[in-house]
Amino acid sequence: MYTKQSLRQEMIRAVQQVKQINPLAGSITNSVTINLVANAQLAAGGSAAMVYLPDEGEFLAGAGQATYINVGTLLPVYAETLPLTAKTLHENKKPWVLDPVAIGIGSLRTELLLTFKHYKPTIIRGNASEIIALAGLWALSGGTEVSRVRGVDSTDEVLAAQEAAIHLARFSGGAVAVSGETDLITDGKQVITSFGGSHFFEKITGAGCALAGVMAVYATAATPLVAALLGSAAFNLAGKRAEAKSNGPGSFQTNFLDELYLASPEDIADNPYEMEEIE
Amino acid sequence: MYTKQSLRQEMIRAVQQVKQINPLAGSITNSVTINLVANAQLAAGGSAAMVYLPDEGEFLAGAGQATYINVGTLLPVYAETLPLTAKTLHENKKPWVLDPVAIGIGSLRTELLLTFKHYKPTIIRGNASEIIALAGLWALSGGTEVSRVRGVDSTDEVLAAQEAAIHLARFSGGAVAVSGETDLITDGKQVITSFGGSHFFEKITGAGCALAGVMAVYATAATPLVAALLGSAAFNLAGKRAEAKSNGPGSFQTNFLDELYLASPEDIADNPYEMEEIE
Amino acid sequence: MYTKQSLRQEMIRAVQQVKQINPLAGSITNSVTINLVANAQLAAGGSAAMVYLPDEGEFLAGAGQATYINVGTLLPVYAETLPLTAKTLHENKKPWVLDPVAIGIGSLRTELLLTFKHYKPTIIRGNASEIIALAGLWALSGGTEVSRVRGVDSTDEVLAAQEAAIHLARFSGGAVAVSGETDLITDGKQVITSFGGSHFFEKITGAGCALAGVMAVYATAATPLVAALLGSAAFNLAGKRAEAKSNGPGSFQTNFLDELYLASPEDIADNPYEMEEIE
Repeated sequence: MYTKQSLRQEMIRAVQQVKQINPLAGSITNSVTINLVANAQLAAGGSAAMVYLPDEGEFLAGAGQATYINVGTLLPVYAETLPLTAKTLHENKKPWVLDPVAIGIGSLRTELLLTFKHYKPTIIRGNASEIIALAGLWALSGGTEVSRVRGVDSTDEVLAAQEAAIHLARFSGGAVAVSGETDLITDGKQVITSFGGSHFFEKITGAGCALAGVMAVYATAATPLVAALLGSAAFNLAGKRAEAKSNGPGSFQTNFLDELYLASPEDIADNPYEMEEIE
Repeated sequence: MYTKQSLRQEMIRAVQQVKQINPLAGSITNSVTINLVANAQLAAGGSAAMVYLPDEGEFLAGAGQATYINVGTLLPVYAETLPLTAKTLHENKKPWVLDPVAIGIGSLRTELLLTFKHYKPTIIRGNASEIIALAGLWALSGGTEVSRVRGVDSTDEVLAAQEAAIHLARFSGGAVAVSGETDLITDGKQVITSFGGSHFFEKITGAGCALAGVMAVYATAATPLVAALLGSAAFNLAGKRAEAKSNGPGSFQTNFLDELYLASPEDIADNPYEMEEIE
Repeated sequence: MYTKQSLRQEMIRAVQQVKQINPLAGSITNSVTINLVANAQLAAGGSAAMVYLPDEGEFLAGAGQATYINVGTLLPVYAETLPLTAKTLHENKKPWVLDPVAIGIGSLRTELLLTFKHYKPTIIRGNASEIIALAGLWALSGGTEVSRVRGVDSTDEVLAAQEAAIHLARFSGGAVAVSGETDLITDGKQVITSFGGSHFFEKITGAGCALAGVMAVYATAATPLVAALLGSAAFNLAGKRAEAKSNGPGSFQTNFLDELYLASPEDIADNPYEMEEIE
């Protein structure tokens, strides 16, 4: 169990390590936001590499310190690439982050997300409706069979996904992050709520994808809970700072990448959050 | 037939509705500009979702309030995805926007564009050369067999495409928008010319794609003619305002998204245009 | 052999020609940075078009004045598209630029890069480790079998790649550009070192890809050596100017595109470089 004090130390240490080492977090991710994911990973201090093909996913799973898998804009070859990559990550005990974006749309996505149950993602990040739907797909408590998914927008409330998040985290042994106006992060034992961010996150595409990609960067240097919290804290801080300087979503995206890059380890660790133990 | 007064009312109402409801306009679009399309759709007030696979296209065609199909950067799977999606849209009487970008390059693109003739796009948007070439491919008056297509740049003049645009609109029962220094929009009965914009639209990639994506957003709330005019008016207004604040194409793209987001329903409705009846 | 004087004249003439004619440099390139490649090509004065399919690559190879092939994010269809496109370029004596990004990852990439040896790229651009690895793959002097590739970051020093670059250039009869803190460009007879740039090039994704895409634009109007030098000079100039105005990588990318667009032919020709003859 983390205390606020031990958590702060861990957060600062992990961010420092990332900024120093520039760890590689490879991604298989959707083409809509792939550029923002890479730029956010670089801004946070990581290195990025994206692939589509089975043997390349397998290679990255071994060569990278962590991997990010996002199931948006699936290609036919992903039927091979994603299970092989996730299996390799699981067998090599490498941390990986799953973003179950658009869960419920299409048969391949459903099949892949069912397969991932065996390979236990280190961090699962999604909107409330996606987290609830994934728990449902995996037949865990708190889930429902059908998400009220509408595109990739959040239509459920973050708190409504708390039970699903806790049970997903207990099942995977990792952490789950629910993105929303406030972010909820849990490892099944502690629940953390991270504050800040910006209403512009809903007005640009890829804030959630980029967040998950940055969690993968932090997962190279910290436990799943700390890595997920670091991602949320960094985004909430940079989002809040960027909003104050922006006229609209265009300048917000530009300023956001600047602020993500400029955020110091202490800044990120001191971004407001609340923590409670559960059960 | 719209009068300037009835048109203004409709435009304001439709933009208000979009900003309030955030309708989903799914896309199957090229990977070069996919991010800008999504960000422009969000800035205009819509929601975005992009897919590649056949059953996902079919799903989006049903779940979305409108759909945008752009035939740039075709993938092999599009041979299945695009006809199925267009067929579903047609059968469900859902509005959809076609962007025949790069018409004339490659056999699959030609085959797909021939197929789309059966599924009558609600709005067709292209540069002059693309509109002329599509009318030619569909054996309609005003078209020529071969476009002077060069990449995706406009090489014909907008006015030269007026006849092709009118006949395409009469055939489809929808609207056609020809993009250029001034934009021409027609439903086969009225021809509207929309003014404004920026020379920087030629110096960034994807202004036309994003415009068509935003027309799909407006098509969820308005007739084809009004939706196409709204797209052009919003882009011409935001482009003009953005240019005044920009040093080059980088800052222009940033400022353009800001201005698209900030444009009020009245601003958009009052952007200068001329209208004439035909026949 | 160029003198500094003849080189300056050639550089100015070529940039003027590009800005006047807007030559088409088609690309088959990775989806992470495809948007930045196109925007950089437009900012430099060229036209852009990107494709995936075999007959479209073949078409572009014939229709474009130059072509850029980047082997990042390979798709299955590239097994057909890339050899056919490179073959067409070679047979039509059209200039083309190869970016061997991520060399060493996956069997298809290795196979494609081996095939390209037959079609002698006009310009090869990469980081030091990629250039060394390509020379190794092609069994040329200065290469090693395995690159210390880590994602797409540069891990070797530019100078360490000089021998590999020279031998690649002598083999291809074109030019080779090694990107790094200073850029090294050679045609096997002269070695040029170009100065400037920005530390932010490492903090955004796609600076190298965009550079190679812009070299393809310049290759429509200049010899391989001059085209490669122009690309480096334009990027080093615009990068340096952009850095002075930027707070972080977000604003840097925006400012960089502005400065690339604003750079005059004389500005680019006068960006600092050193030149020496070899052998």
